[in-house]
Amino acid sequence: MDNNSRNLLLTLRYDGLSFHGWQYQPNCRTVEDELKKAIKRILGEEAKLQSCSRTDAGVHANMFCCNFRTDNQRPTDKIILGLNAVLPDDIAVYGCEEKEAGFHARYDCRGKEYIYKIWNAKQRNPFFNGYALHFSRELNEKRLDEIAKGFVGTYDFSSFCASGCAVKSMTRTIFDCSVRREGDMINFSVHGDGFLYNMVRIMVGTLLDISDKKINEPVIRIIEAKDRNRAGVTAPACGLYLNQVFYE
Amino acid sequence: MDNNSRNLLLTLRYDGLSFHGWQYQPNCRTVEDELKKAIKRILGEEAKLQSCSRTDAGVHANMFCCNFRTDNQRPTDKIILGLNAVLPDDIAVYGCEEKEAGFHARYDCRGKEYIYKIWNAKQRNPFFNGYALHFSRELNEKRLDEIAKGFVGTYDFSSFCASGCAVKSMTRTIFDCSVRREGDMINFSVHGDGFLYNMVRIMVGTLLDISDKKINEPVIRIIEAKDRNRAGVTAPACGLYLNQVFYE
Repeated sequence: MDNNSRNLLLTLRYDGLSFHGWQYQPNCRTVEDELKKAIKRILGEEAKLQSCSRTDAGVHANMFCCNFRTDNQRPTDKIILGLNAVLPDDIAVYGCEEKEAGFHARYDCRGKEYIYKIWNAKQRNPFFNGYALHFSRELNEKRLDEIAKGFVGTYDFSSFCASGCAVKSMTRTIFDCSVRREGDMINFSVHGDGFLYNMVRIMVGTLLDISDKKINEPVIRIIEAKDRNRAGVTAPACGLYLNQVFYE
Repeated sequence: MDNNSRNLLLTLRYDGLSFHGWQYQPNCRTVEDELKKAIKRILGEEAKLQSCSRTDAGVHANMFCCNFRTDNQRPTDKIILGLNAVLPDDIAVYGCEEKEAGFHARYDCRGKEYIYKIWNAKQRNPFFNGYALHFSRELNEKRLDEIAKGFVGTYDFSSFCASGCAVKSMTRTIFDCSVRREGDMINFSVHGDGFLYNMVRIMVGTLLDISDKKINEPVIRIIEAKDRNRAGVTAPACGLYLNQVFYE
């Protein structure tokens, strides 16, 4: 048997409320650490996980992908069942797929979709404590949808990146961005080829500041300024969900 | 000022996961007890609550109604804000309305709608632990919807009442009953003029037993038998939501 003859891509869902994000940190409860412990119990191996991205503390995932190499020959459906039997209730794996040897969950990722949930009613909703931002002032979803279209395109998104973030290029392409209402819930969704640190949360905070007339310039001007101070606040983590991860 | 000059109807939502149901019980955390404590703090009174119904431990409410009499003259919107400021996170009030002196949340109720949520996918969903039944075998929602139509009408529903339940009449009218799928979530909803103890959960358990071919007779035969043993299991509390309460 070759060393690490299989490259397995796991697809999972997690409720981020009780996690300090995806990435391993000593003395913190993280999704990566819980998943590695589960793999160790089921396959008897220390897996080295390559993930599609990281998520911050309190951010949720309807879809999150990571791959790891293993010699274990257990069938993929048995791996899913085994992992879910030992994972804590707030993580569940729902996909396990064999990929080619060179596949990497981050480098081969072609895009991601995030959703940000805003409970837009006067009173808070007990089912969404930690699962949506409560915003009590009235939001006009049609107007916000038009404004959100200003994010679509290929731009240097420095204005929408947390300060101190060090990446080679701040240029990203947003394929689509929309705001929809379902009853009292507003769903902001954005699909792009990649995202800067806190980018979606700053986009949402900016839309809310525009709605509140704290910001009075079009999104394209804020983008062109390449200045974090021109954009709005960083919306809290609780409303953010990594919703889809796209590969070839 | 007259004694108890106002009769206030409160509308609330609660996440039932951490409650031993609505009704006060000594040494148990109940919604009624938490709401009475909040009213005491905000209005300084021991309220006597008249509720639209009770809910069991673990059952949720998107809408629950109760009324109480008070001499306090605080405006209704201020009462809502005050209560939500002191209520625990898993309860929120979103309506407070003045009703005529004789109004009673249970006796004046003209109907209720319940929803039962079933997460129908092979793997569990971390966001619905305690908020939906996980049922991993495939469900045919179109067929279940047709079967569910068999509950519509005015019948003696003894077969769908927990044994030991003592009420004068077992006759109830079901106005509508349907099964719909949204992705991997199946929503069973039922609207009736009243419900017997555990009635909705036994209806759902019966549909699942029919789907599993553990029960092989039409709903109307089970109703006509007036025999709890002919119906299916009682589905767990976690998937059940009181969704609407109707008054004149």
